[in-house]
Amino acid sequence: MKLLVANPNTSDVVLDVILASARRRALPDTEIAGLSSPNGTRSIDCAYGDYMSAPHMIEAVRRRVAVDRPDAVVLAGFGNVGIYALKELLDIPVVSISEASMAMACLLGHRFSTLTMLEQFIPYQQDLVRLYGFESKCASVRAININVEEAATHRERTLRDLSVQVKELVSRDQAEVVILACAGLCGYDEALSELSGVPVIDPVVAGVKMAEAFVSMGISHSKVRKFRAPPQPIADYGTEVLAPGQGGKVTPGRG
Amino acid sequence: MKLLVANPNTSDVVLDVILASARRRALPDTEIAGLSSPNGTRSIDCAYGDYMSAPHMIEAVRRRVAVDRPDAVVLAGFGNVGIYALKELLDIPVVSISEASMAMACLLGHRFSTLTMLEQFIPYQQDLVRLYGFESKCASVRAININVEEAATHRERTLRDLSVQVKELVSRDQAEVVILACAGLCGYDEALSELSGVPVIDPVVAGVKMAEAFVSMGISHSKVRKFRAPPQPIADYGTEVLAPGQGGKVTPGRG
Amino acid sequence: MKLLVANPNTSDVVLDVILASARRRALPDTEIAGLSSPNGTRSIDCAYGDYMSAPHMIEAVRRRVAVDRPDAVVLAGFGNVGIYALKELLDIPVVSISEASMAMACLLGHRFSTLTMLEQFIPYQQDLVRLYGFESKCASVRAININVEEAATHRERTLRDLSVQVKELVSRDQAEVVILACAGLCGYDEALSELSGVPVIDPVVAGVKMAEAFVSMGISHSKVRKFRAPPQPIADYGTEVLAPGQGGKVTPGRG
Amino acid sequence: MKLLVANPNTSDVVLDVILASARRRALPDTEIAGLSSPNGTRSIDCAYGDYMSAPHMIEAVRRRVAVDRPDAVVLAGFGNVGIYALKELLDIPVVSISEASMAMACLLGHRFSTLTMLEQFIPYQQDLVRLYGFESKCASVRAININVEEAATHRERTLRDLSVQVKELVSRDQAEVVILACAGLCGYDEALSELSGVPVIDPVVAGVKMAEAFVSMGISHSKVRKFRAPPQPIADYGTEVLAPGQGGKVTPGRG
Amino acid sequence: MKLLVANPNTSDVVLDVILASARRRALPDTEIAGLSSPNGTRSIDCAYGDYMSAPHMIEAVRRRVAVDRPDAVVLAGFGNVGIYALKELLDIPVVSISEASMAMACLLGHRFSTLTMLEQFIPYQQDLVRLYGFESKCASVRAININVEEAATHRERTLRDLSVQVKELVSRDQAEVVILACAGLCGYDEALSELSGVPVIDPVVAGVKMAEAFVSMGISHSKVRKFRAPPQPIADYGTEVLAPGQGGKVTPGRG
Amino acid sequence: MKLLVANPNTSDVVLDVILASARRRALPDTEIAGLSSPNGTRSIDCAYGDYMSAPHMIEAVRRRVAVDRPDAVVLAGFGNVGIYALKELLDIPVVSISEASMAMACLLGHRFSTLTMLEQFIPYQQDLVRLYGFESKCASVRAININVEEAATHRERTLRDLSVQVKELVSRDQAEVVILACAGLCGYDEALSELSGVPVIDPVVAGVKMAEAFVSMGISHSKVRKFRAPPQPIADYGTEVLAPGQGGKVTPGRG
Repeated sequence: MKLLVANPNTSDVVLDVILASARRRALPDTEIAGLSSPNGTRSIDCAYGDYMSAPHMIEAVRRRVAVDRPDAVVLAGFGNVGIYALKELLDIPVVSISEASMAMACLLGHRFSTLTMLEQFIPYQQDLVRLYGFESKCASVRAININVEEAATHRERTLRDLSVQVKELVSRDQAEVVILACAGLCGYDEALSELSGVPVIDPVVAGVKMAEAFVSMGISHSKVRKFRAPPQPIADYGTEVLAPGQGGKVTPGRG
Repeated sequence: MKLLVANPNTSDVVLDVILASARRRALPDTEIAGLSSPNGTRSIDCAYGDYMSAPHMIEAVRRRVAVDRPDAVVLAGFGNVGIYALKELLDIPVVSISEASMAMACLLGHRFSTLTMLEQFIPYQQDLVRLYGFESKCASVRAININVEEAATHRERTLRDLSVQVKELVSRDQAEVVILACAGLCGYDEALSELSGVPVIDPVVAGVKMAEAFVSMGISHSKVRKFRAPPQPIADYGTEVLAPGQGGKVTPGRG
Repeated sequence: MKLLVANPNTSDVVLDVILASARRRALPDTEIAGLSSPNGTRSIDCAYGDYMSAPHMIEAVRRRVAVDRPDAVVLAGFGNVGIYALKELLDIPVVSISEASMAMACLLGHRFSTLTMLEQFIPYQQDLVRLYGFESKCASVRAININVEEAATHRERTLRDLSVQVKELVSRDQAEVVILACAGLCGYDEALSELSGVPVIDPVVAGVKMAEAFVSMGISHSKVRKFRAPPQPIADYGTEVLAPGQGGKVTPGRG
Repeated sequence: MKLLVANPNTSDVVLDVILASARRRALPDTEIAGLSSPNGTRSIDCAYGDYMSAPHMIEAVRRRVAVDRPDAVVLAGFGNVGIYALKELLDIPVVSISEASMAMACLLGHRFSTLTMLEQFIPYQQDLVRLYGFESKCASVRAININVEEAATHRERTLRDLSVQVKELVSRDQAEVVILACAGLCGYDEALSELSGVPVIDPVVAGVKMAEAFVSMGISHSKVRKFRAPPQPIADYGTEVLAPGQGGKVTPGRG
Repeated sequence: MKLLVANPNTSDVVLDVILASARRRALPDTEIAGLSSPNGTRSIDCAYGDYMSAPHMIEAVRRRVAVDRPDAVVLAGFGNVGIYALKELLDIPVVSISEASMAMACLLGHRFSTLTMLEQFIPYQQDLVRLYGFESKCASVRAININVEEAATHRERTLRDLSVQVKELVSRDQAEVVILACAGLCGYDEALSELSGVPVIDPVVAGVKMAEAFVSMGISHSKVRKFRAPPQPIADYGTEVLAPGQGGKVTPGRG
Repeated sequence: MKLLVANPNTSDVVLDVILASARRRALPDTEIAGLSSPNGTRSIDCAYGDYMSAPHMIEAVRRRVAVDRPDAVVLAGFGNVGIYALKELLDIPVVSISEASMAMACLLGHRFSTLTMLEQFIPYQQDLVRLYGFESKCASVRAININVEEAATHRERTLRDLSVQVKELVSRDQAEVVILACAGLCGYDEALSELSGVPVIDPVVAGVKMAEAFVSMGISHSKVRKFRAPPQPIADYGTEVLAPGQGGKVTPGRG
């Protein structure tokens, strides 16, 4: 099957990290193509960044899907970043890495915690847990203080900081499962899990596996109400302003 | 005081309706300027429309605030439409008409209901109630089926449809207060209230009064975590792509 | 417009503090009259105090409203203290300072905390948050240990104690907004806000601004069910026992 | 053991009904004394009635307890009516018939419903369910439209009306247990249970049995915070105004 | 009246402790018979132990009830341990000590905490609180680390450990009532209550008193849906495998 | 990979249906072995059936896993049926079809509904939704009235009954996704989805795909607290009584 993995920020460093995780546990016959948002920000670290970056990614995904006809889309941003907009637009499964990892975490322990990048981003992440309806399964949201690109490159320091936080999550907040709530934290799951003794979820891995499962099941999201197609013609949503070029900085698939 | 009222869609018909409501109950010395989103859609009727329109409005507000220095901003879209992004960007009070009307409705009756435009938009509105934390005060969300511009122009039919729904809300859902959950429904509050015998809230009126109250109190939203300024320089969020012109279709203030 | 501000305890010291706050941010043309409860206690510090004092205040308000015809009533007790009874009795807006400040706080940050007087009063205040339906927006309730009259008079010590608690609320409980949950704490809002960097709400200011907003909107609470007038004639509720004199210790308005 | 059963309204007709229920299932050696509120209203049918009547009952209970030294107090009003105030005042068990019947109902079925007197009293009763924390066990609150004294006297019509409502509660609201949420409905439990096939709780019976259980267990409510004694001397709560006579219309015990 | 008290584990040491508590506060004319589970484990300390032990106890209770015709059954395991299965099987009141003690605790303070045996059993106990619907009344679940039989025999060490935990529950978790969430902790209630100043509930005492109350009220659980009799003939549930002997290790009643 | 699919009832008819679904969407290299409970009931239709059947299945799984060393276990009963007990016992992923299908449904629409067999089983299913923490995503639980074996054999009538219920779920309860909450309903998903236009989840398919995902991710449930191994030696849980034969009626794998 073919998956399109969409990075809602503009960072190719982050896209590389995402694609590495996407491929790590994918099925042998899963082809994975990736794209970054052609405009916006290198790191979605606030609600403003979400709104500034996601529309470009949405539009890029819409065009790419029309051309490449993937079997499913994985939205590789740990946030809202337009996940419901994509589900409205598309009939194929669209899976956010945030909802996939939380849904899986529900089965893996009494309560999970999510680890995000910045202190100030915690309320945004708490709102996300509520949006998805997982409050009673969420022990806490905590932050390390590092930005998404640094996390992707300064592995040692990041791992050290993550370890400290994970221990707190387990002992103080009584979390039994930890979710790395940021694409930039991809790839730290196994080392952290070994250090802490609890399952640690790489959200991109979770998103890819959930998307594969949906494709394999022949199921997609309900189009009956919440995710019904936008009621107006797409052209009436002003899309053309967002993506003047023929795909902009879209990263070619490497699946 | 000076208020900037932002319409997150591109419709000047709707902006006119909004401004009429904004002025209707404003204090005598409140100056009201309005702007529509310079790009996007004439009617935000789905999550996709939210993401396609709101960024342009956010950027337009940001520029306009820098120039006009209003005392507060009223975001006149009954939805998320970037309300938290605006609160991050600005230090002056930013009030969404949706949160203002729900907060007021909490004081006016046991439970409130909100009336939105389209059946398929109900889950979006239910998510909004949850986002704000008002679930236990919300009796229901219902829809009439009409689009925002029609609602603004076909007053008679709209009033008739609204009356039917309001009666259901009161008798079946046991709502005691009704919120017109769409800027396009502004101005129907008084007629509906008379017909139904329950308070009906025009959300733009509520938003303006709440903004006036905050300005008068010398209080604004907390900048300590959730609404702290975006951590990166604004230029790094790719703003320039959104607003190529010097303010685009921005509607001049008429306060 | 004319507001009647009702102090549910018998302390004129507290009424003075309340009236000072009521006037501080009121509109220029808002006349404010005040009354204290003609009987009961100088400080409502428990459920017993609530029930012993509120009925006298309710009856005094009822009589005063019949004579003075204010446009709205502000109930200046941070508690239940008969708020729903007053809403049943009256058709004009009746705003409790507790509900007004919590409703406003919902818009000003991710979560708010309330600061009350006594440790033993915390559960009462937590019940109040639940009664109003704001649990998911409330980070915590904490107490300083001081009585209402002392708080009104020993400003320096009180400010010092408040500062300590506010810092805890922000750093430990992750509150982003603080509500001074006692009329006796009125007037500390600005100093505390400066010290702590978060918005601090003076509940009487909030109550007055909300009442002004409702009057200006021409809206009042729903009379359809919860706040419908008492079903029996008023005389059948035994009111005459409560207020033998012609208004007792009613404090003349100074609006 | 000796129980004092307090009727928070002034109706001796209702007190008779209450005492009949109180004695019906009491232990052989339980002596039951009753008192009505010496002032207030014959029927607590709104929040105003609650506040107008309860203080007189509270004061009457306080005096009577000091003299008669009962082992526990049963507050026979299905409402708030100062239950927490009484718990603060007294060290012996104080049981509200409303909390006792809801707590028992939790064990008797998946969800319970409560039946109150008046449509307009439903929100008050819903708030009571929330106050006690039983929302997730409460299927619904419904009303028949009859006043408390009529219910106590017009048995046939009342039973017919109750039957209709109970059937709706079971079939539509999926209640499995029904609570007669009004002292005036005492005594209908057995006939209704037979007609409907579900357990129907007479709240006074429930209150008496719970009080007997607490006395027998040697346990009473926690005095550590919420129900700690009022912090000021009792005289400072203005009690003397409420009960000028030597007990007023206090009904002699007949235990 | 006759009560059958069922111990869901196989330990006669624990059964002795249970019966001592069961008799301590029972009415003079209450006869109490006890049985332990004829198979399973000496201590139910995990979900596995629950499922391995409870079926034998259920079957033993079913047979014993058919022969002895008690008026009610008290299930003396602080857990799920098949409580709903027993309610389906029987028409007489069946009371779990866990639900009885939580229901009573709701009336005795603002929030209660439960004390269980093992750290790893806390999530099981938290699930139990949710199952019963008492989340909003539960301050916390904590554990001492001791097994059920040691707790029943090493009284001094256990009391010391319990005291430490109870103090934490009251000061940190703000519990006002403590429930000893394990039959093995029976009998520590009075000493602990004296040490801590808060009511401490012995769950077997609570279960017995609640059962006595139900019998005395002539009420039992609703058979209309949740607790309707199993739809197939009992023989079709494979019961005979569980209890090959004529009652196995069933302990004779000593009521 | 090798999966062991466990049917908690004793019906080989049902096991055949389960295995057909298990294989339908499994990966090509997934081997699936099945076992039914060696004792208990042909249909788990109440809490009693759950407790009577699950222990035998648990023990059979435990023995089989020790011998066959599968990569994961799928518990193919839509209920509690000892899911947490199995997670305690095993270190490999154990996935209940009920939790897997609900977790997936959360991503596929605003709210899901579950369809169970019997009216009287609805509260059990509602408790299950609460246990997993998915209340806010669950629109309703409904029942058709048919037993599990009939459902597996009378396909036409069952499909007709299911269609009627699904339409109600979508139009009245506003469900957007439907879960067939019974192994006996496996295989109706595609026909129903076509008839209704909403995604319909076959829970065994969901369970298998979730198990495959976990195995592929190299992740299993947290062993740190809730699912830590039973604290006593397995022999001390009385297991030998349950499974006298060498595996009893265990059905050979056909993967």
